[in-house]
Amino acid sequence: MATKEYIHLGKNVTRQGGVERVTGQGIYAIDLIIPNALKGGILRSRHAHARILGIDTAEAETVPGVYAVITARDAPDIRYGRQVNDKYILARDKVYFLGDPVAAVAADSQETVRLALSKIKVEYEPLAPLLDPEEAMLPDAPIIHEEVPIPANLPEDANFKNVCHYAAVHTGDADSAMAEAAVVIEETYETQMVHAQYLEPKVASAEYDEAQGKLTIWTSAQSPFPVRTEVARLLQIAVSKVRIIVPNMGGGFGGKSGGIVSGGSLEPIVGLLAIKARRPVTIVLDKAEESIATTVRAATKTWIQTGVTRDGRILARKARLIFDAGGYAGMSSLAGMMATNMLAGWYRLPNVHIDGYMVYTNKQTCGSVRGPGGLQATFSVESHTDTIASRLGMDPVEFRLKNMLKPGDRTPTGHLLRDVPLEETLVRAAEEIGWRKRPLKANQGIGFACTMWGEGAGPGGSALVKVNEDGSTTVMIGKVDYGTAIKSALPMIVAEELGIMLDDVSVLGVDTDNSPWDFGTVGSRTTMACGNAVRLAAVDARNQLFEVVARRLGVGADELEAKDKQIRVRASPDKMLPIAAAASMVHFIFGEVIGRGYYNPEADAAEEKEKGTSPGCATHAALVEVDVDTGRVDVLKYVAVHDVGFAIHPDGVEGQVEGGVVQGLGQALCEQFIFDENGRTINPTFVDYLMPTANISPEIQTVLVEGYMGTGPYGAKGIGEVTCLPPPAVVANAIHDAIGVRLSKLALTPERVLRALKDKEEAH
Amino acid sequence: MATKEYIHLGKNVTRQGGVERVTGQGIYAIDLIIPNALKGGILRSRHAHARILGIDTAEAETVPGVYAVITARDAPDIRYGRQVNDKYILARDKVYFLGDPVAAVAADSQETVRLALSKIKVEYEPLAPLLDPEEAMLPDAPIIHEEVPIPANLPEDANFKNVCHYAAVHTGDADSAMAEAAVVIEETYETQMVHAQYLEPKVASAEYDEAQGKLTIWTSAQSPFPVRTEVARLLQIAVSKVRIIVPNMGGGFGGKSGGIVSGGSLEPIVGLLAIKARRPVTIVLDKAEESIATTVRAATKTWIQTGVTRDGRILARKARLIFDAGGYAGMSSLAGMMATNMLAGWYRLPNVHIDGYMVYTNKQTCGSVRGPGGLQATFSVESHTDTIASRLGMDPVEFRLKNMLKPGDRTPTGHLLRDVPLEETLVRAAEEIGWRKRPLKANQGIGFACTMWGEGAGPGGSALVKVNEDGSTTVMIGKVDYGTAIKSALPMIVAEELGIMLDDVSVLGVDTDNSPWDFGTVGSRTTMACGNAVRLAAVDARNQLFEVVARRLGVGADELEAKDKQIRVRASPDKMLPIAAAASMVHFIFGEVIGRGYYNPEADAAEEKEKGTSPGCATHAALVEVDVDTGRVDVLKYVAVHDVGFAIHPDGVEGQVEGGVVQGLGQALCEQFIFDENGRTINPTFVDYLMPTANISPEIQTVLVEGYMGTGPYGAKGIGEVTCLPPPAVVANAIHDAIGVRLSKLALTPERVLRALKDKEEAH
Repeated sequence: MATKEYIHLGKNVTRQGGVERVTGQGIYAIDLIIPNALKGGILRSRHAHARILGIDTAEAETVPGVYAVITARDAPDIRYGRQVNDKYILARDKVYFLGDPVAAVAADSQETVRLALSKIKVEYEPLAPLLDPEEAMLPDAPIIHEEVPIPANLPEDANFKNVCHYAAVHTGDADSAMAEAAVVIEETYETQMVHAQYLEPKVASAEYDEAQGKLTIWTSAQSPFPVRTEVARLLQIAVSKVRIIVPNMGGGFGGKSGGIVSGGSLEPIVGLLAIKARRPVTIVLDKAEESIATTVRAATKTWIQTGVTRDGRILARKARLIFDAGGYAGMSSLAGMMATNMLAGWYRLPNVHIDGYMVYTNKQTCGSVRGPGGLQATFSVESHTDTIASRLGMDPVEFRLKNMLKPGDRTPTGHLLRDVPLEETLVRAAEEIGWRKRPLKANQGIGFACTMWGEGAGPGGSALVKVNEDGSTTVMIGKVDYGTAIKSALPMIVAEELGIMLDDVSVLGVDTDNSPWDFGTVGSRTTMACGNAVRLAAVDARNQLFEVVARRLGVGADELEAKDKQIRVRASPDKMLPIAAAASMVHFIFGEVIGRGYYNPEADAAEEKEKGTSPGCATHAALVEVDVDTGRVDVLKYVAVHDVGFAIHPDGVEGQVEGGVVQGLGQALCEQFIFDENGRTINPTFVDYLMPTANISPEIQTVLVEGYMGTGPYGAKGIGEVTCLPPPAVVANAIHDAIGVRLSKLALTPERVLRALKDKEEAH
Repeated sequence: MATKEYIHLGKNVTRQGGVERVTGQGIYAIDLIIPNALKGGILRSRHAHARILGIDTAEAETVPGVYAVITARDAPDIRYGRQVNDKYILARDKVYFLGDPVAAVAADSQETVRLALSKIKVEYEPLAPLLDPEEAMLPDAPIIHEEVPIPANLPEDANFKNVCHYAAVHTGDADSAMAEAAVVIEETYETQMVHAQYLEPKVASAEYDEAQGKLTIWTSAQSPFPVRTEVARLLQIAVSKVRIIVPNMGGGFGGKSGGIVSGGSLEPIVGLLAIKARRPVTIVLDKAEESIATTVRAATKTWIQTGVTRDGRILARKARLIFDAGGYAGMSSLAGMMATNMLAGWYRLPNVHIDGYMVYTNKQTCGSVRGPGGLQATFSVESHTDTIASRLGMDPVEFRLKNMLKPGDRTPTGHLLRDVPLEETLVRAAEEIGWRKRPLKANQGIGFACTMWGEGAGPGGSALVKVNEDGSTTVMIGKVDYGTAIKSALPMIVAEELGIMLDDVSVLGVDTDNSPWDFGTVGSRTTMACGNAVRLAAVDARNQLFEVVARRLGVGADELEAKDKQIRVRASPDKMLPIAAAASMVHFIFGEVIGRGYYNPEADAAEEKEKGTSPGCATHAALVEVDVDTGRVDVLKYVAVHDVGFAIHPDGVEGQVEGGVVQGLGQALCEQFIFDENGRTINPTFVDYLMPTANISPEIQTVLVEGYMGTGPYGAKGIGEVTCLPPPAVVANAIHDAIGVRLSKLALTPERVLRALKDKEEAH
C-alpha cells in the first residue's frame, strides 16, 4: 500500500481518550451525577411462561420513599420489535421468559426499591415453558405468541409452530445433485446461548422536563437514534422531545444495539418512571439481572449435509437451521438470516437448499452479538468442511483451496465477489501456524477455519466537521464510542484531509438533539460507514475553505492543497493562508465551516451488484494440545489472518482482532448459559458463567492482508465482527486433528472432550 | 400586508417557554446543579486608579476550604478588548476603576470565599482618579492606559489625552454654511451612565475535564461564541476544547453581550479557577458587585450647533461628542461611533462636521446597552430639534416634516434611504397623541421624538433545521433566548415554510459544541439575521424533502407544496406523502434532513448601497404633566409608532415596544449612577438606584406601520433596540411644552425640574 503518501493514515497513534478509558477517568453512564435522581428497579417475571391474571401495586405504592410504581397500564398499548412487534415495554397479559419486565418502581434508595418490588403482587397462571426450539416447532406445541402471524414467507406445507422468522437459500437442484454425489456427509452441530458480556452493565437514567415536555435519557446504548425513535413512539412523545445522550461506554459487542430491544425496554421504562415520579430516575442492572433480562447470542442446532465427488469437488448442500429466538423475536430476523445464508459458506456450491427457522422459546431473547449468526454458521460450516476432507482423506487446507470462492465467482446467495483474498488468507495462515512442519507432539493438533463477513447493511452514517476560528475542528457523528475507531481512525481521517494535526480534532459524543442521525454503532461499520461520512465531511469543509482562500489568493480552488495547517498553492507554497485565518474568514461569509458527509451503503450496494462485492474475509489457525486425562484444551498458538483492505490505524485493527479472537475462544471453550427445567438460568453471574481470561488466551499473531479494497475510506474494510467468528471451528478442528474426535456441540468443555474420547473408545 | 396567505405568520401565538419564564420553572444559570461545584469570588480593586505593587495570596491559600487562589500570574500574559486590547482578565500592574478584578478564590462555601478574599493583601500605589472625560482629555492629564496607542484616525493636531477611539462625520462645508445661516442655535446635552439592569445576575460556572483537556462554561451571556473565542485565546486552549453553554437567560439588553467584555472577564476567571481548583466553580455576582464591575451605558456630553434659514431649513450642523468610555475601551468604539453618526440625525443636512471622542476615565467600562449610543444621540438631536423649532417659532412637528429625510434621500453619513416612512410615523404619532386637539390643561405638555436605527452590522446568523423521522423538527441556532423572537417568531417561520404546526418545532438552546456559530444575540438581529437564516434552513430542508417525494410521486419538485403536515402535488393534493414518511425516507438516503441557512448581512449591505437601505424608524409622543411644586413629571399617555416592515409575531413586537419605552423612561426620569470624588459608585443597588416601575409606566399605545420592507424575513425589521431611544427626548420636549423650560441633562429628576423652574424665574 502506498501509505507513504499519507501523513497520518496507516500510522499507529495513541487513541484519543485511551488513557481515560484505561485509568477509569472517563465518565460512564454509571458515573453521572444527576441531581435529585431516584433509584429505579424492575420487577421481572418469576415464570418462563405464564398468563398475568392481575397485578396489585397498592401496597408497593404506600411504601415510604416510593415515588412511582408503573405497570403496563401506565404505558400506551403499543408493542415494539424488529420486523415483528411482539413486545410491550412491561408485560401486559403474558410473560414470555423468566426475566420479562412486569412492573417498575422509583424510590429514594435501592433498599426502598427492593422492598417496594417485593410488595407488588402479580397473579400468574403458569404455563408449561417451551425451552427446546425443536419441541416448540412440533405441530401440537402450544403457541407462545398468539398475536404474531405466521411468517409470510414460510412455505405453506411447513406445519411448524412458533416460527417467528424464516429464511432460505435455494439455488440449483440440491436433491438431484446430492443423489449424484459419490460421497454424502451429514452432521448436526449445536451452538450454545452466550451473552455479549460487556463489562459495563446496562444503565439508564431519565429526566423529564415538564415545562418543555422533554424527556432526556442517558443510556449505555449502541444505537441512540433508534432508541429515541422507539421511546418516542412507545411513550407517544414527539421525536424532537426525546433526547438520548450516551456517555462513555464500557463495551457493547452488539449486546447494546438494536434500539431498546437489547436492554429489554430499559430506556422507556426508566423514562416512564421519571415522568410519573416527576424526578430523575436511574436504573442499573446487576449482573444476574443483565444475564436473564437482556439479549443474547442465540443457540442454534444445524443439520448439514454435503455431497461431494470422489476427488473432492462439492456438488450440493442441504441444511436446516433451528435458531432459538427466545421469548421474543428480538434480532432473530437479522441474526437468523445471516446464519442461514452463511451455511452456504465460502465455497463453490452450485446446488443449495438451506432452510432457517427462527423459533420462539421461553428463554432470553436473541440479540445481536458480534457477528450475529455468523459465529454459529462458521462453526457448523468449517467443522463440517474438515469432516468432509477427513472423510475423503484429503488435507483440509487442500480441500478448502480446491473449493474456495475466488474473485469473479458468485456466492451461493448470488453475490459476485471482487476483492476477496480468501485463498491468500488461508495460505498465509497455513504458513504461519506451521501446517507443513508437522508432525506435532502427541495430542497436539492444528485447526483452520475460514470465514467471510461483509459490513452490515442498512443506512449509512452522517457526519459534520466544523472548522473553528483557530483551525481546530469539532467532529459530530451519530456513532457512539465503545471501543471502535471513533477516537483513532476518525481523527486521522480528518487530520489527513484538512492538513492538520491529530490534536486539532475533537470528536464529540452522541447526543441525539445535536449529533447527526445515525443508525447505530453496529455491523462493523464505524470505520466503513462513519469513516466514509467523516471523510466526505472533511473534504466538504476543505472545499469551503478552498473556495474562500482561492478568491483571496486569486487562484483556482483546484490549485490549492491543505497541509501543515496551511491552505496553500500547490505549485508555490509560499502563497498561503493559515487554516485558522481561512476559517475565521468563512465565519463571516458562510456562518462557519460546517462540512457535511453522508455515506450511503445502498448506493454502493447497487454498484457492487454490478462490479462485485468485497466483504472482509479471514482465516484463523490454531495449534492446540488436549489433555486426554482431564479433557482440558490449551490453545498454544493462534494465527489470525485478516483481509482488511487498508489498515487506517493498524494498532486499532490488531486490537479488534485480538479482542475478537479471545471472545470467540470464550464461546469455543467455556461460555454458556445453563437452564433448569423451568427455564431458569442457573449460572447468571461471573461466578459460574466462565469467561475467557488470561489463562486461556493464547499469544495471537495477527496478519493483515492489505490491498484488496473495500468500500470503506481509503479501501478499508470493517473488522469489528469477523474476528470472533472462526475460533470455535478452529479449536474444534484442531481437537479433531489432535485426538481424532469430532466435537459438534459448543462449548468444547473438558467434560465434552472426555465424553467424546470415551465414546470413541467405546465405538472401537 | 397580505398576511391572509400565511398560516402562522402575522398571527399572535403563545410564546414557547413563556409559561416557564413567568412561573419561574425555567432553568437559569443560577439554578444549575453542578455536582461538586465550589463557590468562587473575585477580589476587586478598592481604588479607581492605582498601580499594583504586589499581591500576596499566601495567607488566603492557607484558609481551610480554599481550593484555588488566582491572580494575573496564573493566566497567560495576554490582553483582550474590542478593537483595543487593553484589559487583562485579572489586573496585572494597574487597576483602572473601582471594581477591576485583581484576584479570585474558589472555596467550599461563600463564607470561606469571603474570608479568603479578605486575606489577600494587595499593595497599591494610589493614583488620582480621572472621573470627568473632559478633564481626562486635557493636554496635561495623566495617561490612564500607557500601553494603548493614540487612535490612528485621530487628527494629528488634536492634542487630546486618553482618547481611545475617535469617530467623525464630515460632509459639505459646515463652517461656511454656518456662517451663512440666519439663525444659529447651539446647546449642550448630557446623558448619564446607567446599567442595563437585567434582573438575572451575571453568573458563570466552569468545569474542567482534565482527561479530555476540555473546559465547559455555563454562563448567562448573549454572545457565547465570542466568549468561547476569547476564553480559548486568553487561557491558550484550542477553541474545540472550550464549550460554552447558555441556559435560560433572565434579560440582557446588551449588557451581557460583547463576549467576555460585558461581564468583566467573568468567564475566563471562573474557567481558570476551575482548572486550578480541579473542581467545578460557580461565581454569582451580587447586585452591588454587578453595578461596579460589569459594563454600562456610557455617559455623554454633546455640544451641538445648528444653522437654519429664517423659514426653517437646516443648513449646517456642528457637534462634538465626549463619550465616557470608562476604565477600559470596552464597547465604546461601536457605541461611540453610533452616537457620533446619529448626531447628524434623520434630517436633510447638507453640511455636517461632527467629532466623537471616546475617552478613558476611571469608571465602569462602556458596554452595549439597548441601542448603544443611539439613546444618547437621540436625546441630544431631538431635544435640540425642538429648541430650533421653538427659536424659529415653528411647530415642532411642522419643522420636522419640513426637514425630515425621505425615501430617496441620502443620510449625512451617505446612505441612500429606501423604505423609511419617517413622515408617516410622525404624522401617526401626532394624530394619536392628539397634537391638533390642544390646548392642554395647565402644566401639561406634549413632546415628540423621532429616531432611526438599523439592525446591527457584523456577520449574520447560521441555522440548522432538522426534520425528524416523525415530522417534528429540531432547530439549532447560535442565538440565545433572552426575550427576543427565538421562541415565537422562529418557530412560526419554520412551521410556515414546512407546512407543520408550531408544536412540531423545537428550538434548542445554545451550546457552542453543537449549535451553529453565531456572532451573538445583539443588534436587534434575532428576527432579522437569525430569522432569515432559519427561513433559509427551513426552505433547504423542504427542498430535500421535495426532492425525495418528487421522485417517489413521479412529479417535479416544483409541483409540490408543504401543507397540513403533508407534502403534496399542488394541482392534485390527493397525491401526497405525510412529512413524517418523507422524512423517514430521507434518513435512509441522505442521512437525515438537515436544512442549513446562513444570512449574510454584508451581501445585503452591498445591495443596499445600490438600492438603498431601510432601517427601522419611529416616532414616539407623550403627554406629560409637571407638578411645579414637587418637580415630579407624570407621563399621562404614551404613543409609540414603529416602522416594522412586517410583524411576524405582533404581540412579540408590541412587547418589545412596551419594554423599550419603559426602559427609555427609566433613563429619562430616574436611573443614574452617582459617584463620590474617589470614583466610588454610591448607589450600586436597587435600594437607591431608581428603576422605572409600574408607578411611572404609562399606558403605552403601540402603532405598527407595516409595508415598508426591511431585510429581515418576509420584510421584517429589527425592533429590539430602537424602541428605547426616543423616550428621554420625548419627555424633555413635553416638559418644555408644559412649563417652558429646557432640561438638557438626564435624568429629568424632580430636583432638576425644580432647579430649571427656579433658574427660569430668576432669569425673568
